Amino acid sequence: MTAQPTKADRFSFGLWTVGWPANDPFGDPTRPALDPVETVHRLAELGAWGVSFHDDDLIPFGSDDAVREERITRFRKALDETGLVVPMATTNLFKHPVFKDGGFTSNDRSVRRFALRKVLRNIDLAAELGASTYVLWGGREGSETDAAKDVRAALDRYREAMNVLTQYVVDQGYGIRFALEPKPNEPRGDILLPTIGHALGFISTLEHEELVGLNPEVGHEQMAGLNFVHGISQALWQDKLFHIDLNGQKGPRYDQDLIFGHGDLLSAFFLVDLLENGGYDGPRHFDYKPLRTEDITGVWASAAANMRTYLLLKERAAAFRADPAVQEALANAKVAELAEPTLAPGETVAQLRAADADFDADAVGARGYGFVELEQLAVEHALGAR
Amino acid sequence: MTAQPTKADRFSFGLWTVGWPANDPFGDPTRPALDPVETVHRLAELGAWGVSFHDDDLIPFGSDDAVREERITRFRKALDETGLVVPMATTNLFKHPVFKDGGFTSNDRSVRRFALRKVLRNIDLAAELGASTYVLWGGREGSETDAAKDVRAALDRYREAMNVLTQYVVDQGYGIRFALEPKPNEPRGDILLPTIGHALGFISTLEHEELVGLNPEVGHEQMAGLNFVHGISQALWQDKLFHIDLNGQKGPRYDQDLIFGHGDLLSAFFLVDLLENGGYDGPRHFDYKPLRTEDITGVWASAAANMRTYLLLKERAAAFRADPAVQEALANAKVAELAEPTLAPGETVAQLRAADADFDADAVGARGYGFVELEQLAVEHALGAR
Amino acid sequence: MTAQPTKADRFSFGLWTVGWPANDPFGDPTRPALDPVETVHRLAELGAWGVSFHDDDLIPFGSDDAVREERITRFRKALDETGLVVPMATTNLFKHPVFKDGGFTSNDRSVRRFALRKVLRNIDLAAELGASTYVLWGGREGSETDAAKDVRAALDRYREAMNVLTQYVVDQGYGIRFALEPKPNEPRGDILLPTIGHALGFISTLEHEELVGLNPEVGHEQMAGLNFVHGISQALWQDKLFHIDLNGQKGPRYDQDLIFGHGDLLSAFFLVDLLENGGYDGPRHFDYKPLRTEDITGVWASAAANMRTYLLLKERAAAFRADPAVQEALANAKVAELAEPTLAPGETVAQLRAADADFDADAVGARGYGFVELEQLAVEHALGAR
Amino acid sequence: MTAQPTKADRFSFGLWTVGWPANDPFGDPTRPALDPVETVHRLAELGAWGVSFHDDDLIPFGSDDAVREERITRFRKALDETGLVVPMATTNLFKHPVFKDGGFTSNDRSVRRFALRKVLRNIDLAAELGASTYVLWGGREGSETDAAKDVRAALDRYREAMNVLTQYVVDQGYGIRFALEPKPNEPRGDILLPTIGHALGFISTLEHEELVGLNPEVGHEQMAGLNFVHGISQALWQDKLFHIDLNGQKGPRYDQDLIFGHGDLLSAFFLVDLLENGGYDGPRHFDYKPLRTEDITGVWASAAANMRTYLLLKERAAAFRADPAVQEALANAKVAELAEPTLAPGETVAQLRAADADFDADAVGARGYGFVELEQLAVEHALGAR
Repeated sequence: MTAQPTKADRFSFGLWTVGWPANDPFGDPTRPALDPVETVHRLAELGAWGVSFHDDDLIPFGSDDAVREERITRFRKALDETGLVVPMATTNLFKHPVFKDGGFTSNDRSVRRFALRKVLRNIDLAAELGASTYVLWGGREGSETDAAKDVRAALDRYREAMNVLTQYVVDQGYGIRFALEPKPNEPRGDILLPTIGHALGFISTLEHEELVGLNPEVGHEQMAGLNFVHGISQALWQDKLFHIDLNGQKGPRYDQDLIFGHGDLLSAFFLVDLLENGGYDGPRHFDYKPLRTEDITGVWASAAANMRTYLLLKERAAAFRADPAVQEALANAKVAELAEPTLAPGETVAQLRAADADFDADAVGARGYGFVELEQLAVEHALGAR
Repeated sequence: MTAQPTKADRFSFGLWTVGWPANDPFGDPTRPALDPVETVHRLAELGAWGVSFHDDDLIPFGSDDAVREERITRFRKALDETGLVVPMATTNLFKHPVFKDGGFTSNDRSVRRFALRKVLRNIDLAAELGASTYVLWGGREGSETDAAKDVRAALDRYREAMNVLTQYVVDQGYGIRFALEPKPNEPRGDILLPTIGHALGFISTLEHEELVGLNPEVGHEQMAGLNFVHGISQALWQDKLFHIDLNGQKGPRYDQDLIFGHGDLLSAFFLVDLLENGGYDGPRHFDYKPLRTEDITGVWASAAANMRTYLLLKERAAAFRADPAVQEALANAKVAELAEPTLAPGETVAQLRAADADFDADAVGARGYGFVELEQLAVEHALGAR
Repeated sequence: MTAQPTKADRFSFGLWTVGWPANDPFGDPTRPALDPVETVHRLAELGAWGVSFHDDDLIPFGSDDAVREERITRFRKALDETGLVVPMATTNLFKHPVFKDGGFTSNDRSVRRFALRKVLRNIDLAAELGASTYVLWGGREGSETDAAKDVRAALDRYREAMNVLTQYVVDQGYGIRFALEPKPNEPRGDILLPTIGHALGFISTLEHEELVGLNPEVGHEQMAGLNFVHGISQALWQDKLFHIDLNGQKGPRYDQDLIFGHGDLLSAFFLVDLLENGGYDGPRHFDYKPLRTEDITGVWASAAANMRTYLLLKERAAAFRADPAVQEALANAKVAELAEPTLAPGETVAQLRAADADFDADAVGARGYGFVELEQLAVEHALGAR
Repeated sequence: MTAQPTKADRFSFGLWTVGWPANDPFGDPTRPALDPVETVHRLAELGAWGVSFHDDDLIPFGSDDAVREERITRFRKALDETGLVVPMATTNLFKHPVFKDGGFTSNDRSVRRFALRKVLRNIDLAAELGASTYVLWGGREGSETDAAKDVRAALDRYREAMNVLTQYVVDQGYGIRFALEPKPNEPRGDILLPTIGHALGFISTLEHEELVGLNPEVGHEQMAGLNFVHGISQALWQDKLFHIDLNGQKGPRYDQDLIFGHGDLLSAFFLVDLLENGGYDGPRHFDYKPLRTEDITGVWASAAANMRTYLLLKERAAAFRADPAVQEALANAKVAELAEPTLAPGETVAQLRAADADFDADAVGARGYGFVELEQLAVEHALGAR
């Protein structure tokens, strides 16, 4: 079996993923809490490279300074023992009732101030632990009724928060960039910045927009029925793919956080193809939940499954790209011709318009693109059949 | 009955809306073609203010210059007779087979060049007819398989096209701005710039980004399960709501183009509330299709219904805002408090962090926001029950 | 304000609705537990007629007999004091980890046996408290992977369970009928009997099918993008609408359990029209969740809002049916003609086929149905504008 | 390459699939019409076994008897020459404007009568050509507004139509069974009998229910976000899987009719596993559309791709079932235990209830099911990686 993960693969996991106790809206936890120290050791054994965390994953909400220090010390020791890195950290702005109307965009100003303080404190820890990316998932920034949230004011506050935070990391000299994680809904009826696109639009208005990018999650875009590979392509095109959350989802429904590849397998194939060949060199971060039906054995099996599926798809994507039949089909489909500018160098609009006589729309319209053949080659490579 | 439209309401319709012959993927047309001249007269009688068109709505694809001039002359005459204006025009880059892989982003460069020429020609006409907005719906810019479209190259070409077009209107001195119309899918499996957000992100990369905004359509965002009012709010917040397409849709499914209000009625209420009170002063443009079951009587009834529903919702939104119980509920929900900056003027991060001692998260978390009461007041106003 | 609920309206609520402590997949509870006795008193004051419960709502899972009796006695006393009835009861087969792979269809036979015992015990209590309907929501009967559940075997076990339960109420002489509550997904990836239709199909295979009907929930069908009014119509048509769960939902996404009318308002209008005029005389049962942002004041406001919106829609539906313009539009649309059999009394197929000559498909195809006018009248009545 | 189709695979195609001229709601046809005779020959060359048709695919609507006979004769000759069979036929009750409000359930009785005559006539032809299944897709049976369709009356008429048709085939001694094809929406806003389940429920009310089953289509169920494998399982369980339409779809959106496997690939894997091992021995019928971007070369490539993907998945499913690791995981997950009745033979409810003392819910709730391992094995077999 060749698909064994190594640190060179840059696989990382959140503490909250394998550590999820398997409670859901209708059910109590089915698994005990995991000690973060154990998680670090087990992930390292499985071949992971990094671990990420919310502040409250590591240090329970409301802990005093002594508990805080003890938890950090133990965690650091585990990192040292295993060589695992902390490429990313984030803040829990969603669990405590105080955030029920949001953090940065709560209607209650005192909550907004508290949220900022909570983030700032954890940024210090993130920097201390060497993280280069700080993720912000605004899962509570939203509303269930349009009457209750002035969205434009909310975006003002969101921008204010981002401006404060980016200036802070500049002032502190932290080598940290921020990554916004979009999601359309759940736990709020509608969440602000619901897709990759909305976040890209928002980022363009920020003071330090160079420090703010995205952490898109497979399932979050698919909850809106959107093509994740297209979304990642646009994020890459705008130089904003700072981090990525890999998992699985079966279309518009509740957030399933399935194992990577256990949702839309063909899209996962194309995603790995894009990540491996598209210039992304950040972490391959899994943000998933081991099924509630599993015990701890299933938890670790699920962690391994994420990495293994990624590696299998990587092999298949490489074979796809190397296949002469694929190269021929790509040429036939004129895929590379799209990289050629539409106007010739120096061509004017007048010159373009004068070229009119040459074009036979009906003849060109009758030509086939051979996309079916290309897709079928991809399917067969995904199936390991070529 | 007070809800009679007048030109002051700035209602406009596309020629292709009432003129749709009612063909669908599984059925032949059920209605004959409408003469644009008749459409102009009938819309004027119903109280509309403006009419918009695709080039091919007015001048059949492939017409010679004589036919072209004759069609334009007749149309102009009808405008003059009725006082209807042309606030917007657009290009048909989707019907002819030549566009089957897109216009600006077709893999075939000759198609891209043809698409640009087609748009340029119709911009000249739009300017001549006094349009101030030029809409671009890239319904064919997309793919059904990720293998066949290099999305980053496609976005390069999309940007190239926009840069060419914006420079052209600048050079010509046309008072025209462009409005991109996002849609997630249909007729392509996945369309580029699928939502308001993705288009906002894209626009931020353009040479003349000040000349490019949005023409969001109710149903298009709702096909992705997104909150249209939130989307419009972000577009307004980024000063990019250049135009709007009003219609109805029943969630993620095929593009229904229902009459405005015949889909999500409560969202339509909040949308009218936002448009009327949110600083938007552009056309209220209906982009809908009269049901295929209707004859010409139903066509004109449907046009009237769009306007009438808008006006009824406008009345209800005004009553909602004026109701003291609503004002009290808004205050209780701290809706206005969100406009207050999170940091005090001149406050530093250090000062913010020092404020920590004052905050009791549990106590604040226990406070209710009264959003239910506010939503119920909105529902009752929508129902005309207060 | 005329819309005050009375017991004649037959409004009922589950203990678990107002009593939901407002935990969600990402957040801790924001409200304390409610004492069922208080709930009964408050619901009665608000004008409700009935209260329903899961076994565990009333008697904590694992209670001993003494606690059980004390809880039942207190609850009974509150019912006596208020005159509230218990029209329906149900079983919690979803919260405890033991049910993580289902109750009646768990792969583990010992769990299936435990589930049956739990239901049987609560049926005795339901009968004792006078309930005539026993609801079964199989929220955990399903799977996340097709490999893990033999669906045909699962349906055998589901049928076995229903056969045991129906025989039990026959043998005991209980005046109880069962109502299955379909849901497509959440908390399981895919739930068995996902829609009204699938449950109707299943019921037709049961030994005592006359004792088993449906308890459809607005939001559950809308999570699959289905028309709830159509679904209820089919359930009524098959004499299987034994109970109903009213609430609100905004299309395919997580189960929102919004207040009735706070989702698809126009569908709610047509639903009330159908229930009031369609021969349904069972409880109008609200199965919703007060928003997590609310405190206890918001909880009771939300309970009142459900009933008030229902009554307002009932008024509007009555006005719609009474409006001569509506009656004319219905006639024009030939709505009543659909009740006329397609074949004449005694007509043979041969006679039908011989009638061919009379029919001009093109002419009939050109006739309009006037559905737009009818829908617009409905919208205007919903808006209280006629 | 082993995956070459033969007649033993029982692959069949509709004339309308490869013959689709590639028009869509926004675009003109991109391909010329195909002669059914050519289609028969090409399908035979590709390894298909059968061909199906709508009446109007073969004989243009409104043809006179001479044309009709000539078309049938040519088609029959092609069948004879190639050995292709006609396992199924169906009626076009959706394209002509006369059916704009439905066929069997049009509000207009004269349309309902015409629809019945049209179906009866084509049943005669189907019988003559040896078809054993007659499909009814009621794509126009539905509505866009709840005001315009009395759904209960519509179901009465639907039932009347089915009773007439089933009695007819009995009277004629035709060896034909009917298969209803559910679809949730498109081209109507909401279609009656929207899912497998609703059709199963409806069938249970018919006079000759033994003659009426289902023709489920992959994409149609997935448009409602439903698990197709679960749906097929229930159809098999109720002995109602009379025929099947294989294709691909990417979740809730317009009807894509992609090549089989080009949508949800993992679901396609499990579907083939079920069909091959679940006792279904009917046609493997592809109801898909070659992408509009393709010319005729792409059309035939797409036909081949459907069959090839099916065969590849069949190989993978066989390997999955044969893998000892899979068998061990199935045992660990207690998949077979679900086939064991919940009650012992002869066990009474009283005996079941007395067994209570033995059960430790917490201990059983803590056991893991190993579903993750099972799913990962399936993914790896799908990927051809084991």
